[in-house]
Order: sequence, then structure tokens, then C-alpha cells
Amino acid sequence: MGMTKQTNQVELVEKGSILTPKGFKATGIHAGLKRKRKDLGAIICEVPASVAAVYTLNQIQAAPLKVTQESIAVEQKIQALVVNSANANACTGERGLQDAYTMRHASAKQFGLPDHLVAVTSTGVIGEYLPIDKVTAGISQLEPSDLDGAAIEFNEAILTTDTTTKQTCFQTVVDGKTVSVGGVAKGSGMIHPNMATMLSFVTTDAVIESSHLQHALSSITNQTFNRITVDGDTSTNDMVVVMASGLAENQPLTPTHPDWAAFYETLKQACESLSKQIARDGEGATKLIEVQVSGALNDEEAGKVAKQIVGSDLVKSAVFGKDANWGRIICAIGYSGCTIDPENIDISIGNTATLKNSQPIVFSEEQATAYMTDEETILIQVNLHVAEGFGKAWGCDLTYDYVRINAGYRT
Amino acid sequence: MGMTKQTNQVELVEKGSILTPKGFKATGIHAGLKRKRKDLGAIICEVPASVAAVYTLNQIQAAPLKVTQESIAVEQKIQALVVNSANANACTGERGLQDAYTMRHASAKQFGLPDHLVAVTSTGVIGEYLPIDKVTAGISQLEPSDLDGAAIEFNEAILTTDTTTKQTCFQTVVDGKTVSVGGVAKGSGMIHPNMATMLSFVTTDAVIESSHLQHALSSITNQTFNRITVDGDTSTNDMVVVMASGLAENQPLTPTHPDWAAFYETLKQACESLSKQIARDGEGATKLIEVQVSGALNDEEAGKVAKQIVGSDLVKSAVFGKDANWGRIICAIGYSGCTIDPENIDISIGNTATLKNSQPIVFSEEQATAYMTDEETILIQVNLHVAEGFGKAWGCDLTYDYVRINAGYRT
Repeated sequence: MGMTKQTNQVELVEKGSILTPKGFKATGIHAGLKRKRKDLGAIICEVPASVAAVYTLNQIQAAPLKVTQESIAVEQKIQALVVNSANANACTGERGLQDAYTMRHASAKQFGLPDHLVAVTSTGVIGEYLPIDKVTAGISQLEPSDLDGAAIEFNEAILTTDTTTKQTCFQTVVDGKTVSVGGVAKGSGMIHPNMATMLSFVTTDAVIESSHLQHALSSITNQTFNRITVDGDTSTNDMVVVMASGLAENQPLTPTHPDWAAFYETLKQACESLSKQIARDGEGATKLIEVQVSGALNDEEAGKVAKQIVGSDLVKSAVFGKDANWGRIICAIGYSGCTIDPENIDISIGNTATLKNSQPIVFSEEQATAYMTDEETILIQVNLHVAEGFGKAWGCDLTYDYVRINAGYRT
Repeated sequence: MGMTKQTNQVELVEKGSILTPKGFKATGIHAGLKRKRKDLGAIICEVPASVAAVYTLNQIQAAPLKVTQESIAVEQKIQALVVNSANANACTGERGLQDAYTMRHASAKQFGLPDHLVAVTSTGVIGEYLPIDKVTAGISQLEPSDLDGAAIEFNEAILTTDTTTKQTCFQTVVDGKTVSVGGVAKGSGMIHPNMATMLSFVTTDAVIESSHLQHALSSITNQTFNRITVDGDTSTNDMVVVMASGLAENQPLTPTHPDWAAFYETLKQACESLSKQIARDGEGATKLIEVQVSGALNDEEAGKVAKQIVGSDLVKSAVFGKDANWGRIICAIGYSGCTIDPENIDISIGNTATLKNSQPIVFSEEQATAYMTDEETILIQVNLHVAEGFGKAWGCDLTYDYVRINAGYRT
């Protein structure tokens, strides 16, 4: 996009990654937690990075989340983030907590940092102790690099039942300087607690204080990561971390900065892209479902209704069955607990209007089935005709493979 | 049980039905809404019966629910209840409402009753107009009887995707008189809105005023029908109706009557039995899951935690996979929103303790798998060690057949 005057444009960076923002290196290796695939990765920043993070709302939180929160509390900065997959280090009590400290200390030593500049996180099976010797041996082999391949290696190292890596990168201009936001995620089942699930790591080179970054991330998370559902479960290990290196040399971003909106939108686009990639790769999924609700009492209720629809097993099964089943959609609306006028709801599936003012309207089943067969993303639009609230949510269809994966995973 | 002094005993009546309590007749016929199977039924009482009812909390309510509520409002009594399956008469607007009135009026005429002593209800596909000519023609053929076969005919007439009929009967003694409570239900998917789902009709010969009966039913529903889940969806047509003929000739039951507890328990046993039968016949289910939560802050939170566990797709999939996956159970506990101590939770599956004070304990996977393979009912017990609250919930496993049934139902 270059250093033009169009500061408010947000552009997708093709093949961009967590290494596109200035100041970051990454790596991913096989440390022996999985049989063959990569299972240990790290992101390092040249300088202590401003950090923001959001954590699972599950009252059962895994040990590494506690240790990471302690790290961040010291000076709201981190310089390294180390992740293992295959084992969540959750429900592992005092020993699990000690293992997380050991993992953090080994990483700090490897990278020559104080402990509190290191965040640790784990994803995988719950209730088994971390094979800490393998983890520390692996950490001693971590050699982050800024080559393109390093981002991919990191992406691979954090996967569990995911079928693809998930990454994104967007750029904008702040104070005439290019600011990049790169991100990576793992999810697959959103959420299968046994895999201790949704993780996302975002890098940026923006100059921004932790408190403002946290404000933006919390707000954006509510509109993106918190709007996806695969099975409605919330894991013990969910975490999103944003690191800001500050090497873009813009004036510090605050909500009153003239380019705040551009930065906010760039971060939001990155998070929305990762969210959609996670939903699309839901366990066993064949389709991404996007629900858009307009006319709600407010944006929050719109999001709640959208999420209720996209989380309904019946709607999800119908999408798998390529069935334009608006009856299940209106039912989900009816039990969302939000303000509705039961006599005045519109529903369309793709370009096919199926319900208008709560009255079924004749539509071509053939056309609707063709849409649901051909498209990879199924769009469900609802107008509640109550007020002006708008919101989106994303999910996936419920398939035989979801049952197969989750009936068979642990054994 | 006879007229003994053990007034507080509640006994199951083998092969008892809605016709066991004195004063009731029933029938079920094929009226042409389904291709071959029975699709129209009625329960009639010799006298106007005290009535209590609970309805779906879905904001979208089907037309017959509105008409039934109007009937009951007049004098809190009904004498006839007419049900059709195959079509829910939901989301059908003004025409649907007129159809429900027509259905009520035709029934009143057939049985020689004023309109307001007739309740009507429908279950089946949403958003299609009731074939009202077939329904009224069918009503003119209804000839209720008190023979045993008549209860079965009624039971069959209200089914949709259910694989079995569901009925129960319990008795107790009130004032030295035998009081019976009989019940019938349909469910299968709890709930698949497109089938407009959970219906239950209960008869009793107890002498009891509507207001006291309503009080008992509302309280019991919270501990029984509201504690089952197949897929978490709540239909537009859910309804439970209790009719009390008063022919047992006991002194009127009120909460201060010495045998109130016995009657309450009898009604509760009947409702719990029907609830479990509905959960066990969940779409595609191979197992009934019963979750018992003790040590919660109060009974309400215990029930909420139990329902969160039994409603988790991951727990349901694990049961199908015969996997003693306590990690998914503790996750569900963690996001229940109830008061817990994350460090002090016990979980057992059947006789196998899997977690004690939130620490995984070594158990025989073989023994656990054998239990989950051999038993038809899988019992999950949780102790939260917070206070004394206790509650139960019921559900079923999530299977390939659930997906098959719901991906393919409408088309």
C-alpha cells in the first residue's frame, strides 16, 4: 500500500505472517511430545514488547495461563512466548504449576531474558502431567529466525486436531508509517476441552502502550474470537496474546490519535480473519457458516442472537444436510433471550428469502439446495426489525466426522 | 399397594397408563396427516378436570399454545385435550391461529362441550399450514374409550421421530384413598424445533384445585422436564398438561394436607420417569446419561451444573465413544457459571473415580470402558465440595445417527 495519504485504508498482505511486523522471529520444532509432528514453538521480539491478552472465562484455568498472567503483571511487556502442543498442562495441580514455571525459566535462560518477559502456553490433553524433561530439552534447541519458513514452523508447532495452519496479516498507515498486524491461530474444535483449544498469537510493530492495546483487544475479541463456536464448549486454555514491538516508529497510538481507527480496524480484520479460519476448520466441518443479524435492540443482542443460531446443533445439522431449514433458525432466535417481535422477523439463506415478517414465503428449494451445496460459506441473514443493532457470528456444520473425531479422540 | 396406613409410599404401577386414574378415556387414529401412522388423538375426562400446564419459554409460540392458554384461563378446567402430530401449526400467523380455533371448536362439538373446556396442541413441521380439513374430518371420528388399548393408540398418535411410546403410572394413598398419576410423552429430539417437540400429558384422579396443581407442576417441571436435554434447543410447541378428575374422593389436596408430600412425590416420579424416557429416546441415542451433582451452592446450581455437563457435545460424544473422558466433564463444570472451587472437585463415571480434589487419579481404563459398553444408563457423579446443593439431569449420547436424522429430516 505504500506511504500514501490514505491512512484509513486497511489492506490484506498476501502471504503475510507474524514475522511481517518489524522485530519478530519465530521457530517451531519437534520435541517429542507428539510422535512425529512439531510440538514446540516460540515467538521472540527484538525488544520488550507491549502486550495485551485475553484468557478463557472457564473457571478451571490451566497452569500456564496463571504463569503468563504473572509475567505480564510485572511490567505489561513480554519479549518471548513459548508454546507446546499435545499436552495442556491443565488440571495438574501444584505439580503442573511448577512445570509451567520450569518451562518459563528454561525459556528465559535460552533467550537470555528475565523470567517475567516470557509467556508460556500449552494445548493438548487435559489432566496429564507435562513431560517436562522433553519440554526443557526442546527449549534448549529453539533458535528463532526471521525467515519466512520460521512462521510456518511456528504455526505447525501449535496445532492439535487442526487440519490446516491459520495465519493472516493486514497493514495500514499510521503517521505516514506502515504498521503491520500479523497473526496465527489454532482451534479446530472450538472448543474441545480435551485439546484445550483456541490459541491465537498476534504481532504488530505499532508503537502502543499496553493499556490501550488491551482496550482494543478486549473490544475486538468480543466481536471476533467470542463470536465463533464449533460446539459451544469453552476450554481451560483459551488465550489470545498480542505483542507490539513499537518498531514502526509511529507516534504512540491512543484512542485520540487520528489514526487510532485505522489501527483498530487493522487489528480487528486480523482477528476476524483468524476467527473465520478457526470456524471453517471446526472438527469435521465441511462449511463455514456466517450469521448476520440486523435490526436488533443493540449490537450486543445482535451478536448474541447470531451466536445462538450458529451454535444450534439443529441449524448446524441442517447446513450439513443442505437443507434451507428456517424453522430451526427462528426457533434459535426465539430462545436467544433477546428482544424480538415474534410477528416480524425476516430470514434469508444466501440469496433466498425464506421468511418475511415471520410468515413463510414460497421459495425454490432447488435454488436453496444448490446454494448450500456449491458454496463453501453459508450466509444466514436475519432482520429482527426491533432497532439498529448489528452483529455477526461464525461456526461450522455438524457432521458425521465431528462425532467420529470426538468419540474416538482420547482412546 | 392397597389402602394401608403407609400413605407416604409411592409405587410404580406396572403397565399403568393415562387411563389408570379414574375418569379418563382416550383414543388415537390415522387422520391422513402422516402417510400411514396414527396422527390424531384425544384424552377426555368424565367431568371438567382441574388443570395445570407449563409451556415453552421460546418467545416464538405456536398457535395451539395460545388457544389452549385461552381455554384454561376461563375456569382453570378442561375436559378434553386433542392433539395432532406431523404438523406443528407454528409460524403460521393469523391463519394458523384460526386453524387452532377451528380445531378446538370441532373437538368441542364432537364431545358436546363448550369450547373453553377443550385444549388443543400440535407437533410436527414448523411453518406449514395445518391441513385443517383432514384434522376436522379426523376429529369427527374420535371415539374415546377406557380400554387398555386406547391409551396405546393415543400414545402412538402423538409421536414424530420417536422410536418408542413413553408412558408411566405411579400410585400413592391420600386420606386412605388410592390416588393414581398416569402420564404419556413424546420427545425424541429434545428438542428439534422442526418437529416442535416435547409434549407430555398427565392424568390423575386426585381432588386438587388448579392453583395447587399448578404450583406442584411448576416446581416439579424444574426438576424433571427442564433437566433433560438432547440438543439444547427449545421448541415452539413444548407443553406439559396435567388434568385432575377428582374422582379419587380424597379431601382436597393443598400444601398443608398431611398427604401433600406423597401426592407431590407421586407426580414427581411420574414426571421424572417420562423425562428419562424422553432423554433415552433422544434422536440417534444409544445411551441414557444421568448426571448427579452434589456439594453445590444450592439445588438450583447443582441442577445447572448437571445440565451443563449432560448438554456438552463433547461429553455426549465421549459417551458414544465409551471414553471415560473426565477432562471434558470438568471443562463443562468450569464454564457453568456456578460457584465452584477449581481445586476441589470429584468426578466419577459409574463406579470409577477419575478425579479427586481436582487431581487426576489412576483408574482402570478397561473397567471404565467395560462399564460404558455394557450399561444402558451411564451415571456421572460430581461433588463440588462447596455446600449441600444436589441436582440431577438427563441426556443422551451424540451419535452418527443424530447427525443423519437431523441433516436429512425435512427433505
